[in-house]
Amino acid sequence: MNDSTPVEVLGWIKTKRVLKNTIFLDIVDSSGEIQAVALKSKLSQHEYEQMEQISPEVAVKVSGIIKRELNKRVELSVKNLEIIGDVKFCVDPCPRSNFDIFGKKHVNYVLKNRHLYLRNDKLMAVLRFKSKFLIEAHKWFDSKGFVFLDAPVLTMLLLYDDDSAFKLNYKNEAKKENDVFLSQCNMFQLEAAVHAFEKVYNISSSFRAENSKGNRYLREYWHLKAEIAWMNLDELATFASEMFFEITKNTVTKSQKELEILNTPVDLDYLKPPFQKITYDKAIDLLRSEGRKIEWGKSLRTKDEEVLGRLLGEKLFFVQGMPNTAEAFPFSKNKEDLRLTQTCDLIAPMGFGELLGTAEKITNKMALLERMSEKGKNTPIDMERYQWYIDLRDYGCVPHGGVGMGIERVIRYLLKLPHVRDAISFPRLCNRVPNP
Amino acid sequence: MNDSTPVEVLGWIKTKRVLKNTIFLDIVDSSGEIQAVALKSKLSQHEYEQMEQISPEVAVKVSGIIKRELNKRVELSVKNLEIIGDVKFCVDPCPRSNFDIFGKKHVNYVLKNRHLYLRNDKLMAVLRFKSKFLIEAHKWFDSKGFVFLDAPVLTMLLLYDDDSAFKLNYKNEAKKENDVFLSQCNMFQLEAAVHAFEKVYNISSSFRAENSKGNRYLREYWHLKAEIAWMNLDELATFASEMFFEITKNTVTKSQKELEILNTPVDLDYLKPPFQKITYDKAIDLLRSEGRKIEWGKSLRTKDEEVLGRLLGEKLFFVQGMPNTAEAFPFSKNKEDLRLTQTCDLIAPMGFGELLGTAEKITNKMALLERMSEKGKNTPIDMERYQWYIDLRDYGCVPHGGVGMGIERVIRYLLKLPHVRDAISFPRLCNRVPNP
Repeated sequence: MNDSTPVEVLGWIKTKRVLKNTIFLDIVDSSGEIQAVALKSKLSQHEYEQMEQISPEVAVKVSGIIKRELNKRVELSVKNLEIIGDVKFCVDPCPRSNFDIFGKKHVNYVLKNRHLYLRNDKLMAVLRFKSKFLIEAHKWFDSKGFVFLDAPVLTMLLLYDDDSAFKLNYKNEAKKENDVFLSQCNMFQLEAAVHAFEKVYNISSSFRAENSKGNRYLREYWHLKAEIAWMNLDELATFASEMFFEITKNTVTKSQKELEILNTPVDLDYLKPPFQKITYDKAIDLLRSEGRKIEWGKSLRTKDEEVLGRLLGEKLFFVQGMPNTAEAFPFSKNKEDLRLTQTCDLIAPMGFGELLGTAEKITNKMALLERMSEKGKNTPIDMERYQWYIDLRDYGCVPHGGVGMGIERVIRYLLKLPHVRDAISFPRLCNRVPNP
Repeated sequence: MNDSTPVEVLGWIKTKRVLKNTIFLDIVDSSGEIQAVALKSKLSQHEYEQMEQISPEVAVKVSGIIKRELNKRVELSVKNLEIIGDVKFCVDPCPRSNFDIFGKKHVNYVLKNRHLYLRNDKLMAVLRFKSKFLIEAHKWFDSKGFVFLDAPVLTMLLLYDDDSAFKLNYKNEAKKENDVFLSQCNMFQLEAAVHAFEKVYNISSSFRAENSKGNRYLREYWHLKAEIAWMNLDELATFASEMFFEITKNTVTKSQKELEILNTPVDLDYLKPPFQKITYDKAIDLLRSEGRKIEWGKSLRTKDEEVLGRLLGEKLFFVQGMPNTAEAFPFSKNKEDLRLTQTCDLIAPMGFGELLGTAEKITNKMALLERMSEKGKNTPIDMERYQWYIDLRDYGCVPHGGVGMGIERVIRYLLKLPHVRDAISFPRLCNRVPNP
């Protein structure tokens, strides 16, 4: 735009300052902000008074002239201001004001008014970064020849216990009242599809009806799943490392503005694979040598992962071979140590914890039935529900494995956010009614 | 590959033919198929007999030599065959055999064994086409500066009646038993986000607990939503036309192989906007002139849309200004005829019906409350649930509107499939238990 170009700006009032017969308005839209200057001498008394009383977040249409003086930022000299959408109540702090939206002080108020705090520039930067991450993920999988499989949310197949799932009545016409669950993981459907497409992925919501209040738990979260034929555990871990790094790199490259707003540089060299790998047994030894009390066979807790991260130089690391007792039933056992599974999880240091998991899947029917039995999934109802998944093992089943990544955990880690709820627009938490 | 190159092929047996001491095996993977030729003279008796008994869908690793003779297709001369995954039961017709998978004859059997029929080349072609369509949609919205908003599935806000939604108990810690629904449409969350990002979209599952058995109904479907600030109805319809066409064009360009398998050419010139537009009133007149009995104020039925399509030259067309009585509450009324809404729906001819809808949204609080009241959404519970959505109207609200597109309906139309269930991997239907 040249100087003296007549323009019309649509946006929201961010701040207003009144100074000696002059009103300065910062007007913001999704692309940035501009300072508008209204001189009392150039406006009618009514117009000037309206402007004096205008409050933040009022939506306006401002007509005027663009001015750019040497070494000064562009200004809009106001000729006319029209109120498009007024503000009838107060939210404090004002969403677009500069405050610590992720701090403890405002948590409940911000969650209660999430629909308005989406206008906060830091929350916007997080959600933009996440949007880019998700879009770059689609592009990356596309470039690698993967098929996006449209796996369903409504399912009868759960990765964990029925109690940890949301249940609903499907009310199907056959007059049966069928209990149906919200998907905890769509690996079941992806495993069927692997025998057609060999490489499939999905990004959609997964659900957990858990009461965890920790800063890594959401009841509804964005879940990236990939399932690949013919890959063993080492290949899966390498694949997952590259996937994580390349999507992150492509996102970071396009998010310099967002990272500046959040004041969070991302060091790509630091995130570059290969990542070191330790066994679960080694992890237990290390933790015990640090005086941590940990029972063999249990999952690593967040604190354990934090201690391991410190011991391993505060870098990303894999823990390989989680015990059977701590893992879900579809994962293969380690043939050389049947207490362990063929799994490998990528852990972020400094308490951010698990970012993604990889696992070889059981291809043998008897081995699957044995694991289901070990996990208590062997009732007649289970046998009916899981029959088709079991049948896959008797119908040209090939070696395959999967990767699962919790998007909010990755975004939280990359942007160093206090809580996963900060990485999602409308968080679903155990201690809040899910509205808005 | 050169002639006489030693190779190892991993795949599934598609067909087997035995002819004079020679076995011909068509081996297929996700990238295509190859003929393997096994000569009795070059194998041990055991190996040859194993191959004689091999059945379709057995997963194999075949080692051998690639042969390419003049004017002949590439062949694999078998040296060794290893069975990776055996087949222990029969599915008839065999998934990879050439049969009409979308025909009426096999519907129930195919749905019951969907996990195996994903290997059918026609169903694979549809799902690949859909995968490309979804990925191209993300790329297109990205190129237009849209933010992907991670809207939730779990919500208290419904577009239609509670009865038409899936309900579940959220069991939140506050000990309240909160009824929560599965999203019918995430426009509510997108409308909040429009006041931050101005242009947002989402592609995820939407849910309807309806008992419709028609060939355009799924209980869980992929729903593309976009919400845009500062656009009026004409602009929205133009935007939606371009979106539909450009995503389709980019998908079709990359899907020649899939369209060949389905024997369904897509004529891009025919799908090119602008599309003709008729008013709802005009549509009623046309239908009545054809002897159709239709009450003013009701939605157009599939048959009505089919008749209109014929009258309008079997091309895509918009119907503008649906009556209030037939539309959801958040859509603006037409200021010049308060019986009508500011909506414009794109209809495909030949009975394929609505592909997408566009609508201006109400920005005035009193107008919204009036519409909610007209639709019976004015109980104290509604006021509590929808309060934040109503509040948006009192907090710098700007003109905005949305586009909603049912992905399976569009895929069904483009590929001329009999039913939307043919356009999704694991369809959720009212007359079937959702398993697999």
